Amino acid sequence: MTKKIRVGIVGYGNVGRGVELSVLQNDDMELVAVFTRRKPENVRTVAESARVLHIDDIYKYKEEIDVLILCGGSATDLPEQGPKFAGSFNCVDSFDTHAKIPEYFNSVNEAAKLSGKTAAISIGWDPGLFSMNRMMLEAILPEGKNYTFWGEGVSQGHSDAIRRVKGVKNGIQYTVPVESAINRIRKGEQPDLTTSEKHLRKCFVVAEEGANKMEIEETIKNMPNYFADYDTVVHFISEEELLKNHGKMPHGGFVIRSGNTGEHNEKRHIVEFSLKLESNPEFTASVLTAYARAVVKLNQEGKTGALTVFDIPLRYLSPKSPEELRKELL
Amino acid sequence: MTKKIRVGIVGYGNVGRGVELSVLQNDDMELVAVFTRRKPENVRTVAESARVLHIDDIYKYKEEIDVLILCGGSATDLPEQGPKFAGSFNCVDSFDTHAKIPEYFNSVNEAAKLSGKTAAISIGWDPGLFSMNRMMLEAILPEGKNYTFWGEGVSQGHSDAIRRVKGVKNGIQYTVPVESAINRIRKGEQPDLTTSEKHLRKCFVVAEEGANKMEIEETIKNMPNYFADYDTVVHFISEEELLKNHGKMPHGGFVIRSGNTGEHNEKRHIVEFSLKLESNPEFTASVLTAYARAVVKLNQEGKTGALTVFDIPLRYLSPKSPEELRKELL
Repeated sequence: MTKKIRVGIVGYGNVGRGVELSVLQNDDMELVAVFTRRKPENVRTVAESARVLHIDDIYKYKEEIDVLILCGGSATDLPEQGPKFAGSFNCVDSFDTHAKIPEYFNSVNEAAKLSGKTAAISIGWDPGLFSMNRMMLEAILPEGKNYTFWGEGVSQGHSDAIRRVKGVKNGIQYTVPVESAINRIRKGEQPDLTTSEKHLRKCFVVAEEGANKMEIEETIKNMPNYFADYDTVVHFISEEELLKNHGKMPHGGFVIRSGNTGEHNEKRHIVEFSLKLESNPEFTASVLTAYARAVVKLNQEGKTGALTVFDIPLRYLSPKSPEELRKELL
Repeated sequence: MTKKIRVGIVGYGNVGRGVELSVLQNDDMELVAVFTRRKPENVRTVAESARVLHIDDIYKYKEEIDVLILCGGSATDLPEQGPKFAGSFNCVDSFDTHAKIPEYFNSVNEAAKLSGKTAAISIGWDPGLFSMNRMMLEAILPEGKNYTFWGEGVSQGHSDAIRRVKGVKNGIQYTVPVESAINRIRKGEQPDLTTSEKHLRKCFVVAEEGANKMEIEETIKNMPNYFADYDTVVHFISEEELLKNHGKMPHGGFVIRSGNTGEHNEKRHIVEFSLKLESNPEFTASVLTAYARAVVKLNQEGKTGALTVFDIPLRYLSPKSPEELRKELL
């Protein structure tokens, strides 16, 4: 039997927990430890036997870990941790600040090249699986347009914005793709659509006792950047209902390529990639875990530096051999 | 400016014509010649200026061609042409006899390794894009099931079977995915479904004058392998209607992965990749053309032998640089 892939998890929030669950689903992998900035005894992992260590101890485990999965946030954690840990470990992360990807790629690439390690950056579903479809379908159907829709799912940033409104006790915001826009594209139209034309914003708000609900609704709907440009719906609900019905983290979305071929571009083709996820962090974690396998195999083959979903052949994601894949799945 | 990728087309049926059209859409490519077994003067290409040559002359153009796109059939053309031409050219083909892929891969691989050429085999949408999704999604969500649906689209084999029935003048068969089966899967059920439970067969038949239509319908519906196991609908139409409404080659289908995560596998995720194609051969040709670009670049980097969609990093399909791809599409 081949040796198992030894995984370290850095950061134990929803995604970190999802990676622990995903590693448990993959027989060729095992969890070495969770590394945290918190007091290790305060972290409750899924498996009682899982080792939890303080992040400062991570370098002691350099020889025991084949790949680190970085589960911190893109705002402050990853810009520091990505290049730092790529200097000593193979890494996978879900860096998702689209505008800063080129800069982040360069800093991780430099560190990983120096250390001879391999790092897959910006892994997940967007960036990630959605990017693969956008890229691949543009190459296949150069005459055409890409559309990305997000939702229905919770936006953390917009939920936070609601909760800052005066008189709001609690709240959550769902980004919802506009059905009529999707249908136009599915029919083969290629309209120019802004993000606000493709999405509406559904808010569930718990008002403080005696608060002016009309005022809250107006404040939310007119909030610049977050809501003003969108069709926004505000529902007032009880705190009880919020906790009961809105505690999950569903998400999803679509990438649609509408493209043309033919002597006069008269043949239309619609290609769609869609996700309906009951747990956004657990699905993202499952993508990270599959790419962790790829990173270890690529490093063993001598491929070093930073890589993205565009650079990694799909077969590296699977525990199966190339022969098995060709026989069973091609 | 970089030199254009010089493409040769082998075989000029619907797919070959689609490749010619696709090359015209890609500024970094140019068509060197179409090679045919027919009399070259009998082949009418899209561009009047396109060079058409007899297949026997192909080796004279060895130095002028960067990649051959083989547009013959999987039954008899490709098993012979694939290994033969991989002995002298970089090649791309759409070999689609699933059961014989391992054997075909080995024979092309051996030839291409010997010649130092690169050959992408079984390229298209199934095998091809559908295989990529089946493989990738199984690796990401190991607990779950894959479903592949084909259609609505024309099946050549089943259309031929209809036309062999006594009293049938002409006919066409559409494979249609069963909506209720798709909906069960989309809802998160993971039923075991046979091909016949997932598809129904819709036949449009032109009867000869005086033929017994009831007998024709019964014969079709009871034909073993082709129709007996399926819900089959037979519509009798006039030859005029057949020519007017059934002359196109639409196709499509879905790959759906229904998978689970969570401590008790309680979170369901549905991932779907779907195609709605107005021209099956032109879309297939567009996939072949994008992979032709990949094959040339991989060969320049020293990667030789046979490859499938599982082996080729997506970025090779695009004319854009890795930097552009990360900036624009990740």
